[in-house]
Formats: sequence, structure tokens, C-alpha cells
Amino acid sequence: MPKNTFSHLKSVVALSGGVGGARFCHGLSGALAPEQLTVVVNTADDFEHWGLWICPDLDTVMYTLSGKSHPQQGWGLADETFAAMGMMKQLGGESWFQLGDQDLATHLYRTEKLKKGESLSEVTRRLNQALGTTCTIMPMCDAPRQTRIVTQEGQNLDFQEWFVGQQAKPAVKEISFEGERNPSPQVIKALQGADLIIITPSNPYVSVDPILSLHGVREILEGKVVIGISPIVGGRAIKGPLGAMIPALRGEPASAKAVMEHYGSLLNGYVVETGDENLLDGVPIFPTKTVMGDFLDRTRFATEVLHFGSELR
Amino acid sequence: MPKNTFSHLKSVVALSGGVGGARFCHGLSGALAPEQLTVVVNTADDFEHWGLWICPDLDTVMYTLSGKSHPQQGWGLADETFAAMGMMKQLGGESWFQLGDQDLATHLYRTEKLKKGESLSEVTRRLNQALGTTCTIMPMCDAPRQTRIVTQEGQNLDFQEWFVGQQAKPAVKEISFEGERNPSPQVIKALQGADLIIITPSNPYVSVDPILSLHGVREILEGKVVIGISPIVGGRAIKGPLGAMIPALRGEPASAKAVMEHYGSLLNGYVVETGDENLLDGVPIFPTKTVMGDFLDRTRFATEVLHFGSELR
Repeated sequence: MPKNTFSHLKSVVALSGGVGGARFCHGLSGALAPEQLTVVVNTADDFEHWGLWICPDLDTVMYTLSGKSHPQQGWGLADETFAAMGMMKQLGGESWFQLGDQDLATHLYRTEKLKKGESLSEVTRRLNQALGTTCTIMPMCDAPRQTRIVTQEGQNLDFQEWFVGQQAKPAVKEISFEGERNPSPQVIKALQGADLIIITPSNPYVSVDPILSLHGVREILEGKVVIGISPIVGGRAIKGPLGAMIPALRGEPASAKAVMEHYGSLLNGYVVETGDENLLDGVPIFPTKTVMGDFLDRTRFATEVLHFGSELR
Repeated sequence: MPKNTFSHLKSVVALSGGVGGARFCHGLSGALAPEQLTVVVNTADDFEHWGLWICPDLDTVMYTLSGKSHPQQGWGLADETFAAMGMMKQLGGESWFQLGDQDLATHLYRTEKLKKGESLSEVTRRLNQALGTTCTIMPMCDAPRQTRIVTQEGQNLDFQEWFVGQQAKPAVKEISFEGERNPSPQVIKALQGADLIIITPSNPYVSVDPILSLHGVREILEGKVVIGISPIVGGRAIKGPLGAMIPALRGEPASAKAVMEHYGSLLNGYVVETGDENLLDGVPIFPTKTVMGDFLDRTRFATEVLHFGSELR
């Protein structure tokens, strides 16, 4: 596929969380030239573990776009080993969060650079350059902003405590974000310069809302062509805890419609799995195969979405 | 060998650096009951790398006494892997110091506990307990005390910069220690309660002198039965840079005698390789096979040294 198919789109910005968003952005990187694509990544799941600063979504996007991610599981690297993890268990250290040996190098590198005063944006740029991703990948903000989960039993948990520590089992009552309220200047600049903004099929509550919650982001999006992609297929989330979050937070079954309504007036177009387009109205709907396979299939999907977005402009 | 052979020795304290000292202490742990043995370990080679606090001698002693050390090389674990190291190279991080994947867990665990305010003595105790060493292993002090090497070309280097970074090649002009000047209270207590103190066959300049340089240590040793073991065999150092350091610092060839003279009046007895006993006088000399093999051979050697020490009391 020639890279100049979308030469009218000087700048496409994708808002992404982990797996689903990362796979779609991988497709975008196949459909666009590097300079046409900027991925703004959720950092509200970031946390400190073993004294290291871990950025799960940034790393999933980086590993996926550099072709290094584990092909099946939703996190980590292909051909990963877990020798440090085994030793940490023997030492009696914390072992509820799986960290692979190669992955550890990423966290060690990042943590040391941050301690020396580099911004998360700058470290992210360095890491991606070293691993050979070519588009621009940036954290939504430089200082920590963190998701907190209030459960229906009244627990107030850090996101990873809930998601990994408690396997996302306690039903969610409320989600809030703490910490940094400003996006990085680079994010503002990228959004302002965007010809098309794509909300990737990530979790709207814990991957996209943290980005939308930052000062000024919603306001910029309201003046842009914004396409959403449903992370719900036939009433189920492809990955992660969204399938249970929608009923818990909205009192209705999980559906593509519920996600569309969640984004509301931000959307100028919405992409859903074929068969999920019934009962949707208000904005143009594009039904297609949204469940992504390999890189070629991701590129196929991204290309369709870019065509849809181009028609909306 | 019955553990009560040396029941008259309630407390033996060994002063140790890395490999040679660790192997001898391994032997001591085979000849004594756990409660009879305390190893005081040099920490003046400790340094920060990848944001982690690394204690090479403490870890060599711990890995050796827990039976986990690499049987040939002088550092690290048996069956170690280097996946994090490979990734760090790819990321463009520092790669001059080899860190194995399992070993990383030790440094991560220690660094996090230190950051949370635990003392190095306490973390060392925890780590050794987890890995199953049974005698008491303690750092010489809790705050950093660091060896600096001034080379004959006038460079002033951190020990690891000189030892690993420059492969111990620049000739040494002067060695000094910076930082903490007090031993930990546990070290003072152990030395004061010792029936026998053994200076293991570690490097006198960069492994033993840092311990001897701490406030009060020499004074306590002067009132105790102290045995030294030569790390020089037939004019050569078994391991490490000592063979070149003696000529550089003393202007004479490396020899068992040079090391004995370096310790001077501290010694009440001296153990050398058979054949090296000529020309030695001033204190009782015990010649034997000092080059150590497996655990049984280390225990044989330690047993001989303990008998020699018992006769000197």
C-alpha cells in the first residue's frame, strides 16, 4: 500500500491505551508515513513497582509498534524470560505484578533517566527511537496522573491494585483521576495541529477518559474531526475489564452504543463491528471487521478508518 | 566433620572481600556452627548503577555461602541469564558492568528497601535469610564508604570505574576511602566478642583496608588473636588486581611477605601456601594448601586455619 494514499492528512493523532489501542496504532503506522502519525498515550495506569516507574500503556504501544510485543498476551515482549521474577519470589519481594527480564531494562532505563530530571516525554522519545518505532509516541502528560477505582464495596484502590492485584474483580462504582491536570505542551500542539483525531478501541473509562480529563483536551477535540472506534463487539469487550465496567457504571449492558453515548458530542463518526450498527444514530457510522489480526489486517482496518475519517472532513 | 570440633571458639569473625574471602568463609561455614561465625564484609566497592545500589562483595559472599555462586567466574550466580543486559544495550543504556537477570532481583530488592529507610545491615540480613545462608553476614558499615583509586597517570577514579570500566589496567599510585567512617554497631559488637579474627585471603588494599580504616576497628583487633591468610601464592595473586598493586604501591614484587608486612603488628599468625613460608618471621607461620577447590576442600582449609588459630590463643 503506497504511503501517500492519505497525503491530504498531514497529521493524524490517535488517543490510545494498551492492547486494543496499540494494535490499531500499529495498523495506522502501516497506513501512514511516520511524520503523519502521533500517538498520545494514557499514563494514568503508571505506577511504581520494585522502585521502578512502570508505564504499561506506553510500553504496550512501543513494543507493539516496534514489532516486539508478545503476539497473544496483552502485555510484554515476545520471547520474554522471567529469571528476575523467579529470584524476587525467592527473596520474598513483591510478586503480584509480572515483569519480564527484557522489560525490566526498559523500566530501569526510564526510571534512571526520570531521576536525572528528564521528562517522561523525552525518555519515551529515546526509548522509541532505540527500539525503532518511527511515528511520534508521547505520554499524555509528564507528571503522574493516576486512576483511582472506588469499588461498590467502598474500597478506594490504585488502578493496578484493582486491575492486577485484585484481577479487576471488585465491581466499580466510581473512577477518578488524581495528580497532574495539564497535558504536555507537545500533546496540546499535536492535537491543535491534527487533521483527524482517532479515539482508538481502548477502554473509554480508564484509557481514554484520563486523556480527555486533562485541561483543554476536550475543548480542542470539539473543534476537530474526531472518530471513535468501539471496543465492544457483539456486547463483549475484546480484552480487559470493560465488559463488566459498563453495566456497573451505566446500569445497562455493554454495547457499542453505550460507548458511543459515553463519548457523546465529541464524536463526528463512529466505527463498529459489522452487526453492531443497528440502533446507532446521530453521527455517521462505519461498520466493518474491527477485531484485528496480524499487522496486515491491522493496516487494512486502519486504512478503512482513515478513508472514513477523510470523508467526514 | 562434627560441628563441635571448635566448641571452644564461641565466636569467629572473618573480614572478607569478594571471591577469595567468600570461598574461605564458605569453608568456615562448613567447619563451624552458624552461631559461631560472623562475616564482616567490605562495602567500599559498592556503587550505583542503573539506579540500583550494588554491593559486589556482600553479594559474592551471600551467593557463595548459599551455594548459588557461579563456580568458575568470580562474581554472579550459576545458571545466570543476561536478557535485561541485552535489552539495555539495545536501548543504549550503560553496559560496561555485567548484571545478570537473577542478580538484578537482589539489587532491586535491596535498593527499594534502602529507599524505604532500612539499613544495609537489615537488608543484608533479610537477603541472606531468604537465600538460606545460616551464619551472620554483615556489611562493615551502613552508609556508603567508597574506595578511590589515584592512578600513576593522575586519574582519580571510583573503584568500579577503575576495576571494571578500565579493567584495573592503569597502575595505582594511591588508594583512599571516602564517606562513612564508623563501622555499624553490630560490627563493633561482633569484633569485641570475637575469640578469633581471621583476615581472609582478600585483597589487603581494597577489600580489607576499608574495614580496617573504620573508627575503632584496628584498636579492637590489637587486643584480639588475629590470623591473616596470604592471597599471594608463589608471587602471584590467585584472582584480581593484587599482583600488580603490590609492586605499584610498595615498589617490590608481589609476595606473601609483602602482604604480611602490610598487616604488620595486627597479626598473631599468618597462613601461606606451602613453599611461601621461607623468609617469614615475627609471628607463627602455618604453611598449607591455600588454593581452594570445592566446598569440602574449602572446609578442609578452614578447619586447618581454625586449629592453627586455636593454638595461638
